[in-house]
Amino acid sequence: MSETIEPIATMAAELNRLPGIGKKTAQRLAYFVASMPLEDVRALSVALWEGRKAIRFCKTCGNYAAGDTCAVCADPARHNGQLCVVRDPRDVAAMERMHAYGGLYHVLHGTLSPMDGIGPDQIHIRELLSRLESEKVDEVILATNPDVEGEATASYLARILKPFHLRITRIAHGVPVGGDLEYTDEVTLQKALEGRREV
Amino acid sequence: MSETIEPIATMAAELNRLPGIGKKTAQRLAYFVASMPLEDVRALSVALWEGRKAIRFCKTCGNYAAGDTCAVCADPARHNGQLCVVRDPRDVAAMERMHAYGGLYHVLHGTLSPMDGIGPDQIHIRELLSRLESEKVDEVILATNPDVEGEATASYLARILKPFHLRITRIAHGVPVGGDLEYTDEVTLQKALEGRREV
Repeated sequence: MSETIEPIATMAAELNRLPGIGKKTAQRLAYFVASMPLEDVRALSVALWEGRKAIRFCKTCGNYAAGDTCAVCADPARHNGQLCVVRDPRDVAAMERMHAYGGLYHVLHGTLSPMDGIGPDQIHIRELLSRLESEKVDEVILATNPDVEGEATASYLARILKPFHLRITRIAHGVPVGGDLEYTDEVTLQKALEGRREV
Repeated sequence: MSETIEPIATMAAELNRLPGIGKKTAQRLAYFVASMPLEDVRALSVALWEGRKAIRFCKTCGNYAAGDTCAVCADPARHNGQLCVVRDPRDVAAMERMHAYGGLYHVLHGTLSPMDGIGPDQIHIRELLSRLESEKVDEVILATNPDVEGEATASYLARILKPFHLRITRIAHGVPVGGDLEYTDEVTLQKALEGRREV
């Protein structure tokens, strides 16, 4: 069928792999890209590829970083003894958008999910334990998502962190149960942080 | 602020230029791209850039083409004397999805819009006239969008095509008034084609 020429079909197929971009949206975007000035498409293409290549992970906390250390860990004002444990770098971005947290982060890069074969060794828990041994940490804030895996991970961490004799808190259920940290508005997220409780 | 590192911000800014991709969606997509395997991002980036570079316009009708001639014009079975005049190559794609039109196309690459300084010389009307002189055309179907510019363009074309003594039709108002051809479902589009009338 002569509906869509090959380059547009290929563009649409690749765009279709992005989250929230269905088949129809992908085709619409592909047609738009086909009509964009060459230099604009070049800028988009280069931004994606060079951007992805430039992504590093902070060697301390696992957050996205442009170099060896992320902007949060590089900021001496943030070393206040608080460590906020999240699943993904984008959860760090969500927390930072709130402008109300002054401590550091630890990114697990996943949550425990025995069904998917993700146990403690598959996520950055070992790195967390070694940070607690070497850094001066007073409080660990468990800020994994309020879903099944996130709660299980928080419970697991609360248990294995007991021997460290520090304050272990869980963000309050101000965040909607079953929801996603990334989509939570700043105010709700702030309430969740304020209402955190000992576990 | 340490919210978003530079490569992700750049990706989000570029994605934000696409239609229907707001600031928040763009950031979400950028974070997703950051987490994609390198080879997948490479495939996406290459598909966009190489795809855009590969876009040619059919030298006959102005539709997108991989080479000199588009798939519709290259198909000898389509030369049945009908010429469907549309605004954009993506309108050709919309018509083709209907699987009910067997003629050829002519893409205007715009519609008359005196407010924006787009007159008959800014769109491919001259090319249409020279086709009518050289090709065996029995009917011109005016399938510009049913909006102000599309109707004005159809009226203008109906007037200047009078001397050619051929059947000039306008797709019926089965397509929603004020709507966009590209978003019209196949059935409505087919009804619009069947209900076309002399102008």
